[in-house]
Amino acid sequence: MNVSWSASQYVKFEDERTRPPRDLLAQVPLERLSSGVDLGCGPGNSTELLIERFGAASISGIDSDDDMLAAARERLPYTTFARADLATWQPEAQHDLFFANAVFQWLPDHMAIFERLMGHLRPGGVLAVQMPDTLDEPSHRAMAETAADGPWAARFGEPATPRKPLHPPSAYYDRLKPHAERVDIWHTIYNHPMADAAAIVEWVAGSGLRPWLDRAGPDHREAFLAAYTSRIEAAYPTLASGGKLFRFPRLFIVVVK
Amino acid sequence: MNVSWSASQYVKFEDERTRPPRDLLAQVPLERLSSGVDLGCGPGNSTELLIERFGAASISGIDSDDDMLAAARERLPYTTFARADLATWQPEAQHDLFFANAVFQWLPDHMAIFERLMGHLRPGGVLAVQMPDTLDEPSHRAMAETAADGPWAARFGEPATPRKPLHPPSAYYDRLKPHAERVDIWHTIYNHPMADAAAIVEWVAGSGLRPWLDRAGPDHREAFLAAYTSRIEAAYPTLASGGKLFRFPRLFIVVVK
Repeated sequence: MNVSWSASQYVKFEDERTRPPRDLLAQVPLERLSSGVDLGCGPGNSTELLIERFGAASISGIDSDDDMLAAARERLPYTTFARADLATWQPEAQHDLFFANAVFQWLPDHMAIFERLMGHLRPGGVLAVQMPDTLDEPSHRAMAETAADGPWAARFGEPATPRKPLHPPSAYYDRLKPHAERVDIWHTIYNHPMADAAAIVEWVAGSGLRPWLDRAGPDHREAFLAAYTSRIEAAYPTLASGGKLFRFPRLFIVVVK
Repeated sequence: MNVSWSASQYVKFEDERTRPPRDLLAQVPLERLSSGVDLGCGPGNSTELLIERFGAASISGIDSDDDMLAAARERLPYTTFARADLATWQPEAQHDLFFANAVFQWLPDHMAIFERLMGHLRPGGVLAVQMPDTLDEPSHRAMAETAADGPWAARFGEPATPRKPLHPPSAYYDRLKPHAERVDIWHTIYNHPMADAAAIVEWVAGSGLRPWLDRAGPDHREAFLAAYTSRIEAAYPTLASGGKLFRFPRLFIVVVK
């Protein structure tokens, strides 16, 4: 099983992973724009959606990962991609759209970043955000349980969780409404049909499991994965038709300035 | 406050109520169709969405409520609407699409109806369903609490709940997959910004609260509404900007034959 964090791993479930940015984009109430930025563009799949809708001339992307940026540039050779850290990034110009698909869950103080970004939107501009809201899911509880129960346990200090829980919708609303004409917040809980427990593990190995595997270290990697897979096998019931439904909640925020 | 169940009450929150059928329709993987039926078409707002996408010639609607059918015919005078009870309806022909927005929650044995409808779909045809999944929400718990705590309590026998809980996604998947090429199931939890508790009450008065008001009877209507509004006021915190977020979970099912 190839479980390294990489663009190729990430795109393995591209159909399922592209549904959330499609759902997010469907709620962006812009007919056209002169400048939009895909924040945390990854390998460019969400950037491609923006280009399909708004045209190539107005869309650029930023990401902090060189591997992702290389994949994005290969996919969309005529689009400008730049390396940047969202925690400190200062846009040089005003924009019509900031689109952030599955990136801000890694930045615990993302509310302050949202407020800063609102200051770089033109009137009528849109901040559109999607974040996995999965820390209470069996897939993520099993990461902490696996980390605590094995010869690698000493490598996981306190706090062992590399991500912080998202805020409730009302907290985002209260913080963003003073900067906005309209704030729309919703959760969608997807249920992805997966072949088996290994397929679920392969999915999270490309995203949420990565920091746990990094902490376990290369010498424990295979044993950690086997222990984690056993927990996933038990946590997700097998369907009558075989396979498992992989429940996946995501939080969406669309702010119109 | 006008709280009768009627087409005019239902369309008061039309923007918010039309988002779910839009979200459902966005996941229907049909380019064109020769025949689609809007099941439980209500006042025709979902029918109009189907016509926008597929053209007027191929779309018809059915509903069990004469008031709704009259409103639908007024809205879409060139479309065929017929009175029918979904519990027993037998399509006379094969269809490409059954679209059911916010109706099957009223039919406790809807799984058996879904199975029957699958038999009336052409290969590649789609059954698309959206149902409010709100029985555990504060808005609905407050209905039962209000019913049990007042001079009208004797009118609410056992069971007092006019709707039954929906099944978990895996139950729909297991039951429908044998008839289908693909089954996609998800929840979306909307958060509708509302002016105040009275606005939330006005919303549910057009849908879920109706059977409770019917049971309380016309003599208790105003007092029941006042008691219910107090509970809503307490159950939904007031936002920093005023108003309240009305959390509203809905279950979506798209089955491709």
